[in-house]
Amino acid sequence: MTYEDSGQAPLIYLDLEQDVALLTAALIDISSVSGNESALADAIEAALRTLDHLHVTRNGNAIVAATRQGRAERIILAGHLDTVPLPSTPGSRGTVPSSWDSDVLYGRGATDMKGGVAVQLAIAATVPAPSKDITFVFYDNEEVAAEKSGLGRLVRENRELLEADFGILLEPTNGTVEGGCNGTIRFQAHTRGLAAHSARAWMGENAIHAAAPILARLAAYQPATVSVDGLDYRESMNAVKIHGGTAGNVIPDACMVEINYRFAPDKTPAQAEAVVRELLAGFDLECTDSSAGARPGLDAPAPASFVAAVGREPLPKYGWTDVARLSEMGIPAVNFGPGDALLAHSDNEHVAAQDVRDCLAALVRWLS
Amino acid sequence: MTYEDSGQAPLIYLDLEQDVALLTAALIDISSVSGNESALADAIEAALRTLDHLHVTRNGNAIVAATRQGRAERIILAGHLDTVPLPSTPGSRGTVPSSWDSDVLYGRGATDMKGGVAVQLAIAATVPAPSKDITFVFYDNEEVAAEKSGLGRLVRENRELLEADFGILLEPTNGTVEGGCNGTIRFQAHTRGLAAHSARAWMGENAIHAAAPILARLAAYQPATVSVDGLDYRESMNAVKIHGGTAGNVIPDACMVEINYRFAPDKTPAQAEAVVRELLAGFDLECTDSSAGARPGLDAPAPASFVAAVGREPLPKYGWTDVARLSEMGIPAVNFGPGDALLAHSDNEHVAAQDVRDCLAALVRWLS
Repeated sequence: MTYEDSGQAPLIYLDLEQDVALLTAALIDISSVSGNESALADAIEAALRTLDHLHVTRNGNAIVAATRQGRAERIILAGHLDTVPLPSTPGSRGTVPSSWDSDVLYGRGATDMKGGVAVQLAIAATVPAPSKDITFVFYDNEEVAAEKSGLGRLVRENRELLEADFGILLEPTNGTVEGGCNGTIRFQAHTRGLAAHSARAWMGENAIHAAAPILARLAAYQPATVSVDGLDYRESMNAVKIHGGTAGNVIPDACMVEINYRFAPDKTPAQAEAVVRELLAGFDLECTDSSAGARPGLDAPAPASFVAAVGREPLPKYGWTDVARLSEMGIPAVNFGPGDALLAHSDNEHVAAQDVRDCLAALVRWLS
Repeated sequence: MTYEDSGQAPLIYLDLEQDVALLTAALIDISSVSGNESALADAIEAALRTLDHLHVTRNGNAIVAATRQGRAERIILAGHLDTVPLPSTPGSRGTVPSSWDSDVLYGRGATDMKGGVAVQLAIAATVPAPSKDITFVFYDNEEVAAEKSGLGRLVRENRELLEADFGILLEPTNGTVEGGCNGTIRFQAHTRGLAAHSARAWMGENAIHAAAPILARLAAYQPATVSVDGLDYRESMNAVKIHGGTAGNVIPDACMVEINYRFAPDKTPAQAEAVVRELLAGFDLECTDSSAGARPGLDAPAPASFVAAVGREPLPKYGWTDVARLSEMGIPAVNFGPGDALLAHSDNEHVAAQDVRDCLAALVRWLS
């Protein structure tokens, strides 16, 4: 989709130099549920194109804007434009339009992640000659299936625009640097038996009973905490679903246990798969889904100077984020953004104005 | 419902003195899926009312016909009129009308249990002065929910008609006396946890893992074989269903295991419940369903003489049958009928003509 034919709605003007918390509110007010990011992307593209120090490229509803100051290092500041759907519970404040309660801003995307996008835009407008070259990346469809990801599309179609030494994803971290992320892998374990009337159970074989050792091994498993590049990644191994049996008088002939292993970024998905296959040796395991984790890489020069500028002890990130996509491209990356990740997607999504301002201040300090 | 207003269809004439296998075919040809027994009940009632030595009572689609010879003992010969629905698979032979393949009779109800009903009717017509008084009981709605049972209705409304020293239920047993039946009791075991994102599993509690000991104890349980009145009842204890979990990235907060215990008739349902509660001590168990078993009672004079007349080693019955209903009234009862119970309800339901004749011959021998 090109800019010209992207929608019928009139273009919305964004003032990138206003207070970054007010800018956050303005971004929330342009609803951008996944798949419907064009109005917001149009407004951002138009605002960025007024800035002479930026080279702007649009791809669908993703926008890449880069400084070309000839600095020794280039960093990426990345954020997604989309949000999850609006709350369905009447009276929820985590919706559109935004609203204020004292100095706290409520609205869909307040934490995930229009505060972070506002910080990106404020830097784009107010730091025209940063100490490191910056590539600003805004993208669509982060909250939906991985194959729709706007960042994934940029990696496939415009990879040359994403060359960088370090990446910061402005996902909510309460203003602390969160490095890397755990990987995730899922399996279905299937046990099989032989159906029979439960009055003559000995004519059958019970597939649910056959799953007993799977649950026992999972329940007894002691997940590791693995130190990677100085951060401690806490792993977990869980049955997330179980299903078996057809009727109250039939010996069940099939049972399925779904298992999710969240593994530290010292392991590849293949190594994580080996851990699960060793734990559940002897069972029929089907791997249904996996995503690599990302090492924090905080010992490289750019991340190290960034952590020093933020001035707070970095933490490991547990949930999978697009940091892993940058990491796969060989770009060390961290999460750093305003707001509490636990409020993301909630009916009550909100962010403190000061947190958005503090996040901006830390980045400006580092980049000036 | 009275006889006169029970249906618009013309009354079907049944010749009770024809070959009992041909009579079975005639009964199959009057379709009587549960809830639609009136045409068959009408035909049977009309045929029985022509026999002067019987006192006939109708209750809905159940019929009780009794000899009054003043004998020292009275026995019940009981059978249900209804069948499960016709097969839905095209070309199935276990349907209506019946068909012959050499001397094997195919059709819905061939085994369960129009062969048995034909034997009852043949005795009613051809043994006018039996050595023991006989109460013939024909009833509706055996194949559906227990509260619809025609035999249950007779027990509630016409209990005085059901006084007897011994009962024979003509369910298919391949012509062997099968005594009593196991009881059955069901539980739902619920485990509860705390939902959390599986990336931060330590914030939650896994309800599926909490069910591991339930499955382990069930899988390890060694069911007993219990000798009752000389017959060996094999018990069983099984998880018949399990369900837990809501999504691949959520720590499950609830899991349910359904358990079915089939217990020997030396135990009451309360005693069976105690067995399960002891095995699964510490878990939240909800009893959802129970039915008492029935002792075979083969050491009493009437059953003993009947077993001797049949001349084959009696066996325990495993599945629950209406024998338990008679047993609850204090009437020892056994199953004895033509056909293989494993063919009951099958698309291929059939019975050998000679098996029906042999069953009739054994009963006539005993009753003459």
